[in-house]
Amino acid sequence: MSAFPQADPERLWSTLQTMAALSEPGGGVTRLAYTRLERAAHEQFAAWMSDTGCEVRVDSAGNTIATRPGRNDGPAVGTGSHLDSVYHGGRFDGIAGTMAAVEVARLLHESGTVTELPLRFVAFAAEEGARFGQACCGSKLAAGLSARAELDERRDRDGISLADAMRSVGIDPDRAAASAWDPGEWSAFVELHVEQGSVLETARVDVGVVDLISGSTRIELTVLGQASHTGGTPMRGRADALAAAAEAVLIAERLALDPRHRGTRASVGRMVVEPGSITTIPGRVTFSLDVRDVDADRQRLAVAEIVARLRAACLRRGTRLEARLLADTSAVVLPDWVRNEVTAAATELALPYRVLTSGASHDAQMVNRVVPTAMIFVPSRHGLSHVPEEWTEPAQLAVGTDLLAASMLRLDARAAMLAAESATTGGAA
Amino acid sequence: MSAFPQADPERLWSTLQTMAALSEPGGGVTRLAYTRLERAAHEQFAAWMSDTGCEVRVDSAGNTIATRPGRNDGPAVGTGSHLDSVYHGGRFDGIAGTMAAVEVARLLHESGTVTELPLRFVAFAAEEGARFGQACCGSKLAAGLSARAELDERRDRDGISLADAMRSVGIDPDRAAASAWDPGEWSAFVELHVEQGSVLETARVDVGVVDLISGSTRIELTVLGQASHTGGTPMRGRADALAAAAEAVLIAERLALDPRHRGTRASVGRMVVEPGSITTIPGRVTFSLDVRDVDADRQRLAVAEIVARLRAACLRRGTRLEARLLADTSAVVLPDWVRNEVTAAATELALPYRVLTSGASHDAQMVNRVVPTAMIFVPSRHGLSHVPEEWTEPAQLAVGTDLLAASMLRLDARAAMLAAESATTGGAA
Repeated sequence: MSAFPQADPERLWSTLQTMAALSEPGGGVTRLAYTRLERAAHEQFAAWMSDTGCEVRVDSAGNTIATRPGRNDGPAVGTGSHLDSVYHGGRFDGIAGTMAAVEVARLLHESGTVTELPLRFVAFAAEEGARFGQACCGSKLAAGLSARAELDERRDRDGISLADAMRSVGIDPDRAAASAWDPGEWSAFVELHVEQGSVLETARVDVGVVDLISGSTRIELTVLGQASHTGGTPMRGRADALAAAAEAVLIAERLALDPRHRGTRASVGRMVVEPGSITTIPGRVTFSLDVRDVDADRQRLAVAEIVARLRAACLRRGTRLEARLLADTSAVVLPDWVRNEVTAAATELALPYRVLTSGASHDAQMVNRVVPTAMIFVPSRHGLSHVPEEWTEPAQLAVGTDLLAASMLRLDARAAMLAAESATTGGAA
Repeated sequence: MSAFPQADPERLWSTLQTMAALSEPGGGVTRLAYTRLERAAHEQFAAWMSDTGCEVRVDSAGNTIATRPGRNDGPAVGTGSHLDSVYHGGRFDGIAGTMAAVEVARLLHESGTVTELPLRFVAFAAEEGARFGQACCGSKLAAGLSARAELDERRDRDGISLADAMRSVGIDPDRAAASAWDPGEWSAFVELHVEQGSVLETARVDVGVVDLISGSTRIELTVLGQASHTGGTPMRGRADALAAAAEAVLIAERLALDPRHRGTRASVGRMVVEPGSITTIPGRVTFSLDVRDVDADRQRLAVAEIVARLRAACLRRGTRLEARLLADTSAVVLPDWVRNEVTAAATELALPYRVLTSGASHDAQMVNRVVPTAMIFVPSRHGLSHVPEEWTEPAQLAVGTDLLAASMLRLDARAAMLAAESATTGGAA
């Protein structure tokens, strides 16, 4: 490995802070999927990438793609992550990987490095499921995995559909659903992301390499009971929708803590209680259930069991249950050969690393359907994510960026070699 | 008893419907305490009462008081209820009693009845605790039971204090807290209200006479946990604020269902989950607890036990608990002599009645501190209240109004007799 320049922690931090400023007010970063603020972040990314000599375009799903030409044309090595956030999220989730991509492009530009084949730097649109319940919208569209109808079905808490949200920022949902990326244009992809867990922190290791990404089933549950006066209504005979929903929260937790479900995470993150008056028994409670697992069967089983137990509780309580599937993905095993190039690069750089599993969903799991993909993790302090306290030391982010650059250069060399071999054997055929 | 005219169910219904139209949009009746809409309802009440020849004034707390002169001056018999509602409440709670007052005044006016002493018809302000957590604001001020500081402390869900809400509708909180009603001006009070329970419906009786009114302790609880990613955070070691709050809901329910607490009602009516994202473990949950009982000691014990068990659950879960008292009243026993006049009137009218306890709070419990008070209940269909489905048959409301009129006339005759006796014995002393 030649002396490729090292990532600059201070520059990375300053880039990241510029992005963090693009937020709704109210604590932490709120830059939701398919909003003006998200598009502003994409425009900022595009401007930075242009400055490094890349050619920038926005695909039909709103993903921003910067291409840096190589010595030859051919399938590109890509990197990137997303720029949207959850409600009151942090500065690092998604942004860390996109800013690492900017830093790699800057290092290549400043060092005058010319790769064998093109490189691509991507900011994916709408990765967070916080707004629409559906994660990885942009990368799912890029992978050709979204049906047009889905974009009308998924709605945010104000009832705005994904399709309408896309239109509101100038993206045509019909085109978006119809045009996937061409696998022939890509050789491999590496996404850098914050871990959002505490494996690396506990192991005191600065980088992780992901072997698989958990799946996630998300449902919206509504318990319909009978609202009535809290004073005039005796305890027996009540149909308290909140009491049933409270059971649901604890049923989900208990099941996920059961040793037979070790590894399952079941969470209720959103809950709306109506009519929401101190002196009225709740008549309607709507809440989300998010079940994640690396084992797709165990994940579906957990959801089915939680819903079945809740149905029994609702029956007993004289309340009615409605369930609506928001999203459902199985765990994704990332291809070992791309991962092996990343771990080889880490060894070359003398970086201790840890192979680990991702509990969160990532664009990588969608992109992997069209491009063999690897993931690099950098540590999350106290394992916290989706909160304003999200934190990764700039020095750790720089180490991850160095590994990302080295991995991309290795993957580029490998792709060029394979292209040459293919041309030779193709000629000989 | 002379042939006093009977209440007109159709007119009662039409009066009630006019009031129901004064509502915020969104289902049911929303006409909150100390809002423009509530004041509009008071102005409508004042206009109707003026038409019956009453002299109308608004006291310093915003209670509207219509006085109908009697043959002589002296302590008045009063009736009335409130005109505000909960969020998305019904058409009858409070309004039924105020509209019955209007009907009684109309019947007196039309029949040219002259009572011995004045009568008063009252629309109390801000009875519902739904907005500020504090019930019976107007009648509590009238009874001289509110400290000025309370009006700054109690806040609605938008952070507006009771004092500011009062000012926004032209009521001076300083004056309101300083000027209570003069007990010397009143001889007795009778409030008519919908039952908000199903005792009368079950007993197939059209009127009830209340012996005592439950007390209520209301607290606001906040569980502070650690928000984090639902996928990246393992089940063990979570500090899920919603899981702790779910335990609270079930702890409260279980305790109130315990035979040792037979009669206690414990309800969580409001709950706000933050940040409220599908993919974030809740970090903060704020909810109300409303505990009611006819036994004041058992009520306080129930609150203390629920909070203690919740504290233990929070400790176990690594979450923190904050508790804030919103309101605390003990059960009120209504004086038997006023009740006896009401039951005597029912017997005269050949009306079957049932003596029963009120689970809900009422202005009557506050007014009773300055004027000996009785309560008449009319049935609530299916026992439902604080919901749009609230319903009392107009014919039942008319029967209740007949009993109210007869009771007031009996109480007036009794007050006049006592005044005459007192004048005689006073002269002899």
